[in-house]
Amino acid sequence: MSLAIEHPTLFLNESIARHNIRRMAQRAQHNGVQFRPHFKTHQSAEIGDWFREYGVTAITVSSVTMAEYFARHGWTDITIAFPVNWLEIDRINALAQSITLHLLVESAATANFLAEHITAPVTIWIEVDTGYHRTGVPWDDNTALHTIADIITVAQYLTLAGLLNHAGNSYQCRDHDCIHHIYQQTITRMQSARATLSDDLTISIGDTPCCAVVDDLSQADEIRPGNFIFFDLMQQQIGACEMSEIAVVAACPVVATYPARQTIALYGGAVHLSKDVIETEAGKSYGAIAQWGESGWDVIPGTYLYSLSQEHGMVHAPESFVRDVEPGDVLLVLPVHSCLTVNLHTHYRTLDGQTIPLMSAEAIR
Amino acid sequence: MSLAIEHPTLFLNESIARHNIRRMAQRAQHNGVQFRPHFKTHQSAEIGDWFREYGVTAITVSSVTMAEYFARHGWTDITIAFPVNWLEIDRINALAQSITLHLLVESAATANFLAEHITAPVTIWIEVDTGYHRTGVPWDDNTALHTIADIITVAQYLTLAGLLNHAGNSYQCRDHDCIHHIYQQTITRMQSARATLSDDLTISIGDTPCCAVVDDLSQADEIRPGNFIFFDLMQQQIGACEMSEIAVVAACPVVATYPARQTIALYGGAVHLSKDVIETEAGKSYGAIAQWGESGWDVIPGTYLYSLSQEHGMVHAPESFVRDVEPGDVLLVLPVHSCLTVNLHTHYRTLDGQTIPLMSAEAIR
Repeated sequence: MSLAIEHPTLFLNESIARHNIRRMAQRAQHNGVQFRPHFKTHQSAEIGDWFREYGVTAITVSSVTMAEYFARHGWTDITIAFPVNWLEIDRINALAQSITLHLLVESAATANFLAEHITAPVTIWIEVDTGYHRTGVPWDDNTALHTIADIITVAQYLTLAGLLNHAGNSYQCRDHDCIHHIYQQTITRMQSARATLSDDLTISIGDTPCCAVVDDLSQADEIRPGNFIFFDLMQQQIGACEMSEIAVVAACPVVATYPARQTIALYGGAVHLSKDVIETEAGKSYGAIAQWGESGWDVIPGTYLYSLSQEHGMVHAPESFVRDVEPGDVLLVLPVHSCLTVNLHTHYRTLDGQTIPLMSAEAIR
Repeated sequence: MSLAIEHPTLFLNESIARHNIRRMAQRAQHNGVQFRPHFKTHQSAEIGDWFREYGVTAITVSSVTMAEYFARHGWTDITIAFPVNWLEIDRINALAQSITLHLLVESAATANFLAEHITAPVTIWIEVDTGYHRTGVPWDDNTALHTIADIITVAQYLTLAGLLNHAGNSYQCRDHDCIHHIYQQTITRMQSARATLSDDLTISIGDTPCCAVVDDLSQADEIRPGNFIFFDLMQQQIGACEMSEIAVVAACPVVATYPARQTIALYGGAVHLSKDVIETEAGKSYGAIAQWGESGWDVIPGTYLYSLSQEHGMVHAPESFVRDVEPGDVLLVLPVHSCLTVNLHTHYRTLDGQTIPLMSAEAIR
């Protein structure tokens, strides 16, 4: 397989992405939990429509802008899984008029703000911090949980649906045992918070490692993974996927080769890939390198991006491989963090030559 | 000063940027060297026009797409300071028909490719590696220099103008002595490479630290700095600028506060700021924090972004400061690497309320 490009181009292997969607939808179904996938990873209405084929009717996004985009494309049940941004209250109210909108609250201040300013019914989730320590009410802060729940309960347009969590601490894992431990700790703490408030509340969890690895997710009521559709090197390092399940690559032209220093320069830099990085045995890696293969791409052992400038991507590769490459060839970069790489592009190309637009192609944010 | 925003917004202090342009233009003038600023940092036709007021008629860009954009906006003398991407030869030839186009060559393979495929006159620079070890012919590889120069010299449409270098190794410096050392080493090695070929060749250098710090630049013939227009925390750490010379910030809404753990959560993440990072005494920093002040912004001591997710920016701040902040407030982030932060936006706002579009607002790349 070989697909012509002129400049750094994002490619999507549709069959891998659909496999990843199908598998996660089946995991949710087997566990009897609601599947509310996070669309911040793919950011595409057309790819969003693939999820409908697997029974998805409710989604998660990370910004008001993204909620507006997917609402325009027919999604009517959307959770904005980010603490409410007070400065966008007018746009939030407009959305609440037209769709079933779910918002995150994690402070009395924001609960009071919404109680005062929301002008249409919205569903509220209290964000709970079970150990990641990014945002959320600490799971064992019963006073704060009750204070917030009480404000929501009496507010005219607010309905408390449940407790929501993102266990980003699972990203520190490097094996399945660790992921199982984080999941069990998360669920235990979420259940404890729920016991404090009301047994009627729903529990929603969100991280891809737990949702992709733990077979018994039945103690949750809803899962909101996003990254799993494409996965990436970070998820592979965590133990959440195989290399063969990574569904996107950036195709980059070779512009220079240096066999003696085992280096290839690509046209493909931080503005095409993002500067997210993983530590590997060989050192820092900004991406793994592959070539077009019979039915997709084949990863080349021992090759990786060791440095990124704005437009340059510097590849370390065995000298024999460097000698076989020349300017005008194309190498493929498997991303460290697919969400951030995808965000830098306006379109996907598929392996059968289709073009799929991203949100950024439609709405200049 | 306080400027209303709804979501993460890039602000430009025009008077600082103009000060930075004026100072660099004067440095070039005093040294009698050509000033060919790199426009990859600001990526804006309107800001590009400011440079004309300081006598600039020739510019540098980092991609064919960027060359096309600035050519559309009236620039007729453009260097694409990136190894020629063979796969864009048709667009390169179209540009060469309409403007004075300068290209970089750093291998016999690319020299031969251009000799065969270029269909209009272009000016060629041999990229020389003086120690950064990204791209370029090693400064002391006389055989390679001669081979490439000979191919260019006999080619119908190619004219060899000189030797070009980006001393990115100056980014490892943390004081002026180091920057002076890198500059002197760079110039000595460039002169040595020139002596091998022909005394008629021009020497072009490019890094912002050397161009901003070294007073006597007269041994070069041309300077191509770009970042200096905005500077950033990385340049400040290198010693290339003062904090007061940084000309851009990202204004971000506060969405949550945690006084006990000295933390503020911003709506402003990797998709607004980029994940470039510096090591500071306090640890990793993805940005410094400021507030609107009387004539611009005031940096808040002891505050910085310690973590970035896709949309979340996590600020470490003194507890007393965190207690004074609430959701709906706005904090300003001084970027670690302004080129990458700017690249994530489609517009600038100025402190007097103007909106300035970036290339990305015009041409979906």
